[in-house]
Amino acid sequence: MNTDKEHKKISKGINPAFAKGTTSRVKRSLDTDQLAQEIIEGNHTALSKGITLVESTVVKHQELAQLLIEKCLVHANQSIRIGITGVPGVGKSTFIESFGSYLTTLGKKVAVLAVDPSSSLSHGSILGDKTRMDTLSLNKNAFIRPSASGNSLGGVARKTREAIILCEAAGFDTIIIETVGVGQSETVVHSMVDFFLLLKLAGAGDELQGIKRGIIEMADAIVINKADGNNEKPAKLAKTAFAKALHLYPPKESTWIPKVSTCSAIEHKGISEIWKAIESYKALTQENGYFTKKRYEQNTYWLLQTVENSLKENFYRDPNVKKRLPMLLEQLSKNKISPFSAAQELLSLRKK
Amino acid sequence: MNTDKEHKKISKGINPAFAKGTTSRVKRSLDTDQLAQEIIEGNHTALSKGITLVESTVVKHQELAQLLIEKCLVHANQSIRIGITGVPGVGKSTFIESFGSYLTTLGKKVAVLAVDPSSSLSHGSILGDKTRMDTLSLNKNAFIRPSASGNSLGGVARKTREAIILCEAAGFDTIIIETVGVGQSETVVHSMVDFFLLLKLAGAGDELQGIKRGIIEMADAIVINKADGNNEKPAKLAKTAFAKALHLYPPKESTWIPKVSTCSAIEHKGISEIWKAIESYKALTQENGYFTKKRYEQNTYWLLQTVENSLKENFYRDPNVKKRLPMLLEQLSKNKISPFSAAQELLSLRKK
Repeated sequence: MNTDKEHKKISKGINPAFAKGTTSRVKRSLDTDQLAQEIIEGNHTALSKGITLVESTVVKHQELAQLLIEKCLVHANQSIRIGITGVPGVGKSTFIESFGSYLTTLGKKVAVLAVDPSSSLSHGSILGDKTRMDTLSLNKNAFIRPSASGNSLGGVARKTREAIILCEAAGFDTIIIETVGVGQSETVVHSMVDFFLLLKLAGAGDELQGIKRGIIEMADAIVINKADGNNEKPAKLAKTAFAKALHLYPPKESTWIPKVSTCSAIEHKGISEIWKAIESYKALTQENGYFTKKRYEQNTYWLLQTVENSLKENFYRDPNVKKRLPMLLEQLSKNKISPFSAAQELLSLRKK
Repeated sequence: MNTDKEHKKISKGINPAFAKGTTSRVKRSLDTDQLAQEIIEGNHTALSKGITLVESTVVKHQELAQLLIEKCLVHANQSIRIGITGVPGVGKSTFIESFGSYLTTLGKKVAVLAVDPSSSLSHGSILGDKTRMDTLSLNKNAFIRPSASGNSLGGVARKTREAIILCEAAGFDTIIIETVGVGQSETVVHSMVDFFLLLKLAGAGDELQGIKRGIIEMADAIVINKADGNNEKPAKLAKTAFAKALHLYPPKESTWIPKVSTCSAIEHKGISEIWKAIESYKALTQENGYFTKKRYEQNTYWLLQTVENSLKENFYRDPNVKKRLPMLLEQLSKNKISPFSAAQELLSLRKK
């Protein structure tokens, strides 16, 4: 778990109290007070440190992280949260570089985070290399944070949600959450953003094939990237195909009609149109109340998810349950027991 | 809960031991032995009684039901389970009447069950009136059971799954599960059948609009009903539109390519083609192993679902949790607490 290393990383710099291992309630509170203050003042180093605290697996750090978050919460929520997904090779980094840089020219403050369930294995496959976003990473109105690692998507998701709060408290008004189409990561990102953007490439007539189930349903915008040079025409055809495909879906609760557009991130074409669409979305949903409603529903979802995951984890960690479950699954595969009897048996084991 | 009424209903007839309220282990075991034997011999009255036992909310009946199911399990699983869904008015009853009658001419034994989450309110809105299937209900090779009522979709689903086992033990080789597109009922039915059929009507060019999310993804066949008279041409157009729409979806794990066809249940046209498609599906998936794999996965799903629902129910029933949750949701709506802190607080309340 690298807890020593983590501890040192957080302990360095700003906050000498950490290094000294001070544990008194008052000091602790002062530490997070100071860190929160620095974050709220927009200090990027403090923000990085705060996020590292949130990501730490050290129990003491986790407690401090909760204190820090409580202090930042009141300054949070003043942003638009944008989820961006797309398969590897679609040009997510180039797009975010171009899109984020454009936003800073409008006076926006842009934070980029990532949800990457694969990163715990590959040690950061997306955003791991900040140099992929050269210009944006040097921009003082931008903050780029590589993907949090974690043992589970739930863990990564939690850390990302907490990082969003810290970024918002630090004055970032546009939060971009990048994810790659692995497992359930889009669903997780969808459940923490206001606007969900799907990046696609024009292909040889098969634009609509193989799109992961449910992805189109979640999209508030589909953007065909790399619409430049010889690719411009296929991109336009893909746009038409997607626009048609979207008609097959029922209207969204937000009443928003998803937009399909083309762009060339590398040539900075079609970028301002995307931002205009997001602004229209925000205006529409703030007007009709959906914006606030969705955020509240997301919070409720995360509350209940956290509770239920914890209940399940504790149950399946029970030694009696752990021992008996494989045997019951074996019996189930031979139709020797009904799923309901097996469940009753497992539940009764727990009580013993 | 009508427990007295239920008790009397089950106690009448076959099994005098019930009426006398005999509770000794030996007698109980004998009772279910006898009932199981009668069911396995194909006695429809015994089957009805067995299903009533399964549906009963009386604790004693539930225990007996489990004994009965264990005894029937070994004779179950020898069928094809077909889910049929479609909005009210699409002609589900007429379709099942025509389809089921056709199957009996092939020597099949057909059982028709229903999952209807609305029935606990409306006291049986689908299949409640057997006369809707005049011919089939009089056919000695068919068994029609009105929808089980229950307090929750989970409860109804469980009862239906157990009823499937009893029907199979009674020698029914084709089980049809009807559901109406309400809430999550299709997903629930999908998770208990081998083959999922979506009934549709041709409309004024808007066939593809307003289809519930995910329904098309689940369908192994889409059948446009009422393709007769003036409606024949629109039905063919709808068929083409659906066939196109299906291309937008990724290949199924079963490797089955969903079929789209038209039929007229009232004129008995297009019915044999549907059965041929189902037979092809069965042959394909039994050959490639998906048939067995899916059933095992469904059983595992039901085991885990039952466990997890029970864990959640117990948690949210806890008086401390019940009292505190609304307050935490209130704080959440005002951004005064993070979802994760709120979850921690709830979980700690439980431990006290």
